Amino acid sequence: MGKIYVLGIGPGNNKMMTLQAKEALESSDIIVGYKTYTDLVRDSFPDKEYYENGMRKEAQRCEKCIEFARAGKTVSLICSGDAGVYGMASPLLEIAFKESFDNIEVIPGVTAALSGAALLGAPISHDFCVISLSDLLTPWDVIEKRLRCAAEGDFCIAIYNPASQKRADHLKRACKILMETLPGETACGYVKNIGREGCVQKVCTLDELSEISADMLFTVFVGNSRSRIINEKLVTPRGYEL
Amino acid sequence: MGKIYVLGIGPGNNKMMTLQAKEALESSDIIVGYKTYTDLVRDSFPDKEYYENGMRKEAQRCEKCIEFARAGKTVSLICSGDAGVYGMASPLLEIAFKESFDNIEVIPGVTAALSGAALLGAPISHDFCVISLSDLLTPWDVIEKRLRCAAEGDFCIAIYNPASQKRADHLKRACKILMETLPGETACGYVKNIGREGCVQKVCTLDELSEISADMLFTVFVGNSRSRIINEKLVTPRGYEL
Repeated sequence: MGKIYVLGIGPGNNKMMTLQAKEALESSDIIVGYKTYTDLVRDSFPDKEYYENGMRKEAQRCEKCIEFARAGKTVSLICSGDAGVYGMASPLLEIAFKESFDNIEVIPGVTAALSGAALLGAPISHDFCVISLSDLLTPWDVIEKRLRCAAEGDFCIAIYNPASQKRADHLKRACKILMETLPGETACGYVKNIGREGCVQKVCTLDELSEISADMLFTVFVGNSRSRIINEKLVTPRGYEL
Repeated sequence: MGKIYVLGIGPGNNKMMTLQAKEALESSDIIVGYKTYTDLVRDSFPDKEYYENGMRKEAQRCEKCIEFARAGKTVSLICSGDAGVYGMASPLLEIAFKESFDNIEVIPGVTAALSGAALLGAPISHDFCVISLSDLLTPWDVIEKRLRCAAEGDFCIAIYNPASQKRADHLKRACKILMETLPGETACGYVKNIGREGCVQKVCTLDELSEISADMLFTVFVGNSRSRIINEKLVTPRGYEL
């Protein structure tokens, strides 16, 4: 009986992977993942076997991992960023439970809220929320409700999947909801292509954020009432006094 | 003029550090940090110079980094977990701005919300909040408000600093506030000493969580309305359909 690691490789650049994730990949017979992610690790692990498939094929990807492990292989199921945050750890654990397979180890990774924050300065240094604007698996009214609660609670907010081709206006709609509570001058920022070629970061106000053309490669940050832009960095104080 | 890296070393075990953090430490002349954290890296980087001080001395630690860098040194200011999340990136950027020093690079790390989640299964696979129960730098009424907003928004919640000697009852008080909105059967879990000796993890209900004796080495997780305990793991589905 083999083993499955479900692991986060960080935001793209292999240097953002943990040593633990690297060791798990080195010890694996086969690396499984969405093709965009397997392409990111292939050069560093050229001698491994690979199994890759497309978006929306997550359940099939989990089934394949269990099949490979039952055949005695050590399997790494890779995720961009972290293994848990909008990642594959959850569907793998659910499917493995149904199939009575339990030799699974979850290895965390640096999710975009952390890697994007590092590029912008220190936007999530105090209590924060992470919210995805993708309504593929979540009703839009749940997303709206969470945006309102996040603004009401004066949380710093990291927004994932701010827009895609099919939902080009989601970030604009989200900003409009946030501005029911937050001033348009709220300090914000965004990062595109974290850890990959063409990586860009920019600070702005919430007003300006509502006008940008984002896509699914953006991660967006909304500061709390104490966040400030200093020296082109987005910085949230660690507390209400220092 | 030298450079300052402010970096997250992950939860304790050096294997949870990113390759980028390891390279920054290798390239540094001096490693600066709270003594508990410098002790975690000293064995792996025995030839470095060290500067360490105690809790509540954060501003002085930042000043020292700037002083060392102005003397031409490459400095690593280390944080447990991530550099940003309740970390040193924010005070360092604020103090450096006042002193017109700007050769600073923030290197992210695996914060306890991610490393603790990996040990418990997949508790924060959907929208989540991170909330600290320490009222050292934040008024308790702000913390209460955020707990209410997090529950109202059906977020998964990662709770940092759930208790300390001086505030032994904070977690109990927080659970009571959450239970104004959430059922006592809500799936929860906690982890102690992540990545260090004596690491333990346990799943439980919100009712049971309110009765545990936590301390500052605990990280606590409260699931959303869809979270379930399966096979002794805390698992939140990635969406409302799969």
